Amino acid sequence: MGPHPAVAAIRLAVRRVLNDILDDHGRTPGHPPHEQPPSPLVLVACSGGADSMALASALAFEAPRLGIRAGGITVDHGLQTGSDLRAAEVVLRLRELGFDPAESVAVTVGRGGGPEAAARDARYAALDAAAERHGAAAVLLGHTRDDQAETVLLGLARGSGIRSLSGMAAVSGAGGRYRRPFLQLDRQTARKACMVQSLPVWDDPHNADPAYTRSRLRHEGLPALEKALGKGVVEALARTAQLSRDDADALDAWAGRAAAGVRDADGRLECAGLHALPPAVRRRVLRRAAIEAGAPAGSLFARHIEEVDRLITGWRGQGAINLPGRVVARRQGGRLVIRQG
Amino acid sequence: MGPHPAVAAIRLAVRRVLNDILDDHGRTPGHPPHEQPPSPLVLVACSGGADSMALASALAFEAPRLGIRAGGITVDHGLQTGSDLRAAEVVLRLRELGFDPAESVAVTVGRGGGPEAAARDARYAALDAAAERHGAAAVLLGHTRDDQAETVLLGLARGSGIRSLSGMAAVSGAGGRYRRPFLQLDRQTARKACMVQSLPVWDDPHNADPAYTRSRLRHEGLPALEKALGKGVVEALARTAQLSRDDADALDAWAGRAAAGVRDADGRLECAGLHALPPAVRRRVLRRAAIEAGAPAGSLFARHIEEVDRLITGWRGQGAINLPGRVVARRQGGRLVIRQG
Repeated sequence: MGPHPAVAAIRLAVRRVLNDILDDHGRTPGHPPHEQPPSPLVLVACSGGADSMALASALAFEAPRLGIRAGGITVDHGLQTGSDLRAAEVVLRLRELGFDPAESVAVTVGRGGGPEAAARDARYAALDAAAERHGAAAVLLGHTRDDQAETVLLGLARGSGIRSLSGMAAVSGAGGRYRRPFLQLDRQTARKACMVQSLPVWDDPHNADPAYTRSRLRHEGLPALEKALGKGVVEALARTAQLSRDDADALDAWAGRAAAGVRDADGRLECAGLHALPPAVRRRVLRRAAIEAGAPAGSLFARHIEEVDRLITGWRGQGAINLPGRVVARRQGGRLVIRQG
Repeated sequence: MGPHPAVAAIRLAVRRVLNDILDDHGRTPGHPPHEQPPSPLVLVACSGGADSMALASALAFEAPRLGIRAGGITVDHGLQTGSDLRAAEVVLRLRELGFDPAESVAVTVGRGGGPEAAARDARYAALDAAAERHGAAAVLLGHTRDDQAETVLLGLARGSGIRSLSGMAAVSGAGGRYRRPFLQLDRQTARKACMVQSLPVWDDPHNADPAYTRSRLRHEGLPALEKALGKGVVEALARTAQLSRDDADALDAWAGRAAAGVRDADGRLECAGLHALPPAVRRRVLRRAAIEAGAPAGSLFARHIEEVDRLITGWRGQGAINLPGRVVARRQGGRLVIRQG
């Protein structure tokens, strides 16, 4: 008798990603082990919650079968009393799974960009450092299809276009360090896998705290949307993420080529050339030019780009447009000049 | 003292669209009236609800000032007892606003594609016929920004990509017949404009009937999403619609050019050429080829195209792929053959 279907599902998801990592790491299928490069280390980022505990259990099962060393890191955000004890408990669980290294990293969460963004920034910085320190080939993250759906809705609320609808990538970070094996798997399967394997899991009270946008979305917004639109909403949102990502990539590539084609001999943007581009491509060329001139990407909104776009498509002698980061866009003699100061 | 801000807003929205219609209709600004083409007729589609009554009132005010004849059509869907009396009442209101023609058109709603789609199909067929019969230059529709937000969420639930996120167009139909002046205006403004103008409005009980997906979305889904994500959600969804539409248009144009470039001398699709395209463009080329071969666009889902795509990107000798409309896709000697039968 094989494993429970939920356990089979999490293992399959992890096995696929480990095989990808081995391929990227220079394994040659069919060659004997002694001709292969030294056994790579794969870390799991584990909060002790159901998703990442399920991920850790699947990594513990699959890694030795593929000649991979497995380790685990838990990040202590220091945001709740006793978070250090919790982190120590997670480290114990990781050791029980046979992980080496199995360690807790304490971080100091700043305030930039709201509490969720600040915690995320601190967490990834710590995971990056841990990966470097241990020479890890990859870090696995436990984000599920449900997390992806929430991320798409959060992006939708920004109203800033399809890039913000594309959610989290299956592979991201420097050199493709971060991998998300559960991005096509639902949260329920991860929970079930923990249950049938008798893995104790910890429910982060933040996940149910209505002070957090994501928590409100998870417990109220998304269920209401499912009630109105039917049970397939999470899957539809996750598929939207993938399609939007591919679309955004293709349009970014087009805009990159187009940007080179609409510059004069001195490298200035020509308004006539910009005018001839499709609006979707022109807006991306303008956004990219503003960022190159020093505007911070995170502060540059669709309405800024629309205003710059009107210098091209709705020209009636208007003055300079002020953009974030003290960047100024103005039209001068058929050229669009975007620069700082 | 000028009109109430809500009335000013609906009139401005209608005036802008009427000016566009005059430009399209061949008016030459600055020329005297006797040198202009004969006064065009603009119809309003009016259910008697707040949105379309506000639209009718603004058309009644603006049309004579721009030398436009105004008429109104109400569609009797025959889905509720007394719907004929209601339609007659709306016609009276349209006459009171000075509209000529002001008429009711009875339709028979079929069953294709669910009750909402069937009613919509019948309605547009009747409006098309009325526009032809009266030689109308345009038909105004009362869809608001809130309707647009709902349409985007309905598209999101299909999970079929950014075209389905692009909502309703400001200009659509044969020759750009349909215009939606209120697409940037919120429903509350339309209601307010009716109130301050003492226009009686009718609340369609269908709009509050939880048997309808759109009604559930309006009364439960969207409010819950606003509660989780903040008040800007409707605006963000409407902006997403516009950005997605432009993106989808640009990618369709690219796919159109790419499709020509990946055909051999006999017009067959070459797998190597397809493989070199960005995934977003390749999927559109494949979708278009399937539709040209006879697959009905409405039955062709993302998963169908993904399966055909694997003949290109994941070729391992798999067999023919069956698509809707008895269309079959198969790979033959480096060529992709998509045809019926």
